[in-house]
Amino acid sequence: MGDRELREFGFELEAREGETSGRAGRWVTPHGVVETPAFMPVGTRASVKGVQPEELRRLGAQMVLANTYHLALRPGAEVIADLGGLHSFMGWDGPILTDSGGFQVFSLADCRDIDDERVVFRSHIDGSLLELTPERTVEIQEQLGADCIMCLDECPPHDAPAEALRAAVDRTTKWAARCRDAQRRGDQALFGILQGGTDASLRERSAEGLLPLDFPGYAIGGLSVGESPELMYRTLDFTVPMLPEDRPRYLMGVGRPIDIIEAVSRGVDLFDCVMPTRHARNATAFTSGGVVKIRNARYQRDDAPLDSGCDCAACGRFSRAYLRHLFVCGEMLGPILLSVHNLAYYQRLMRDLRAAVKSNGLREFRLGHLAGSGDGP
Amino acid sequence: MGDRELREFGFELEAREGETSGRAGRWVTPHGVVETPAFMPVGTRASVKGVQPEELRRLGAQMVLANTYHLALRPGAEVIADLGGLHSFMGWDGPILTDSGGFQVFSLADCRDIDDERVVFRSHIDGSLLELTPERTVEIQEQLGADCIMCLDECPPHDAPAEALRAAVDRTTKWAARCRDAQRRGDQALFGILQGGTDASLRERSAEGLLPLDFPGYAIGGLSVGESPELMYRTLDFTVPMLPEDRPRYLMGVGRPIDIIEAVSRGVDLFDCVMPTRHARNATAFTSGGVVKIRNARYQRDDAPLDSGCDCAACGRFSRAYLRHLFVCGEMLGPILLSVHNLAYYQRLMRDLRAAVKSNGLREFRLGHLAGSGDGP
Repeated sequence: MGDRELREFGFELEAREGETSGRAGRWVTPHGVVETPAFMPVGTRASVKGVQPEELRRLGAQMVLANTYHLALRPGAEVIADLGGLHSFMGWDGPILTDSGGFQVFSLADCRDIDDERVVFRSHIDGSLLELTPERTVEIQEQLGADCIMCLDECPPHDAPAEALRAAVDRTTKWAARCRDAQRRGDQALFGILQGGTDASLRERSAEGLLPLDFPGYAIGGLSVGESPELMYRTLDFTVPMLPEDRPRYLMGVGRPIDIIEAVSRGVDLFDCVMPTRHARNATAFTSGGVVKIRNARYQRDDAPLDSGCDCAACGRFSRAYLRHLFVCGEMLGPILLSVHNLAYYQRLMRDLRAAVKSNGLREFRLGHLAGSGDGP
Repeated sequence: MGDRELREFGFELEAREGETSGRAGRWVTPHGVVETPAFMPVGTRASVKGVQPEELRRLGAQMVLANTYHLALRPGAEVIADLGGLHSFMGWDGPILTDSGGFQVFSLADCRDIDDERVVFRSHIDGSLLELTPERTVEIQEQLGADCIMCLDECPPHDAPAEALRAAVDRTTKWAARCRDAQRRGDQALFGILQGGTDASLRERSAEGLLPLDFPGYAIGGLSVGESPELMYRTLDFTVPMLPEDRPRYLMGVGRPIDIIEAVSRGVDLFDCVMPTRHARNATAFTSGGVVKIRNARYQRDDAPLDSGCDCAACGRFSRAYLRHLFVCGEMLGPILLSVHNLAYYQRLMRDLRAAVKSNGLREFRLGHLAGSGDGP
């Protein structure tokens, strides 16, 4: 099935940076082209919180992520399949990526037992006892029908002992082979997921296990799970070069703007993170001048837009004073407008990063970001 | 000031119905024309809950309402004045109407004392003791800067004794004269408010007191405060004819679609109500086939739109199954999309009512509504 996927999911590198490992590409999926580096807004339960698909499109989002674990519990993958699949269900006709559900089983749900065969867990919604196998996650993701789907992986905590990290690598490799064998649909790109924590030899072991399976793309899992940013960057330094040049590379669950800049500089192509929308609901906005906590009393009479360089619906029409008022009063429009703005910020960041790669300006862009925004270390 | 207001706020009757008292008009305000009969979405705290102004405009809303009481408490009328007034503050460049705050003082706040001079109440936010006078409500509303503002009135409960209703009528008349004298701005239409409950002689007494003050428009207060729909319609039967033909008539806080149809048939021009947005947040949608409680399990696999005759953002892109899923999961997008839909329903209702007036078809329209929707008695 590998050959067919590679044809349907052509990934063309348009530019490589001279000074860094940054790259710009075009990734063809059944629902459209994704220009990389790309950020996927997170629609956990088939909805990017507070934002209509039409608005997402307007902001420049090209691909969104949805969570298999949540959707399998509610409304159920069969229901979504009955309704024509995830694209139709959530009213988004662009590319979609689903994760495998594994990460949530280990973090959000109550993981009761795991062996090479399957993982048993309790639903965080009703406490019912469920199990997930590699075959089942592929079946569910085929029912959901995203353009890009993920192998089941085991993601241990960042401070797990070396033996546990190594066992997770080996189990993830075995599961990846089973996922690949279980795949029936030819119109979904199945990605393998590297594990191995922050240990170079374990990452090497993971790559050696997965690369022969010839996946059309690879994800880097097991990062952004509590380790320091510096350690994450060092891990990317040695992990990204293990991956094939001609396939997209996806860093799961990352992250802050500075993390994305650092990862793009190291050759990562795809990102997802709840941060822009979650921060928005907590009244925190990303702006070109740094992070703005909009509830602050200093904005009470501030008639300036959130970010004068931003052309989103919030910045085009409303003042900081009004946005503050909405949050102080608990008006829904506050989280809505800040979500729109933060997603606009992230999409502009990705466009700027693409342009920087093409003009050999990534290092300069990184310095400019650190000088201007103060959101990073 | 009356002459000037009449020029700036020209109200032209375009059509009268033959069989009912229904009428269609055009009302000119400083921020644009309002085609009547018109429904004003309610933006209590300078935000129609969950809906961006751009979307309101797209739905056909021409005028919105904001609440003086809430805005005077937060963020304060001076703050809004500093920021250029309510239109600029809330990003709505169309006509706006503000109420006087009186209704909230008697209902939402803790009213501590009232005499002919002023009303004393406790803020529902921080319990602070505040007072409102006719002069002060005009001053606040001039700071807010809406196109249409309201006199301070006393609105007793619908089951108040006759003596209390009569005292409220007389106080409302005295306060109306003081509001008129207090008005400084020439670009706001100040409406008088009739009181008198459901008693014809008290309504007559109220009209006799207010009409000599020559307001550019009149509101009917003291209805939709707990009386039966039939009693409200009977009250409109004798109250509306007391009002001048050539000025807009505004029925405050009403109501259900059937209430609006009945009131338009009796010659009312303007309406406001929280019902479309509040019902939306409670997962209840108005449709041409009747009220839909979207959380109901019967919609779990229903791939039809909420209302096939509706062209709103919710009906154009999403299924009932998806809308149900959003509510079951507690996703913000559920209330957002249902608010958009319910407001679209109300705006379409008003367009249909205008067309029915013009084609002498109000009675038929009313029967069709009752046969189709089942939302009313």
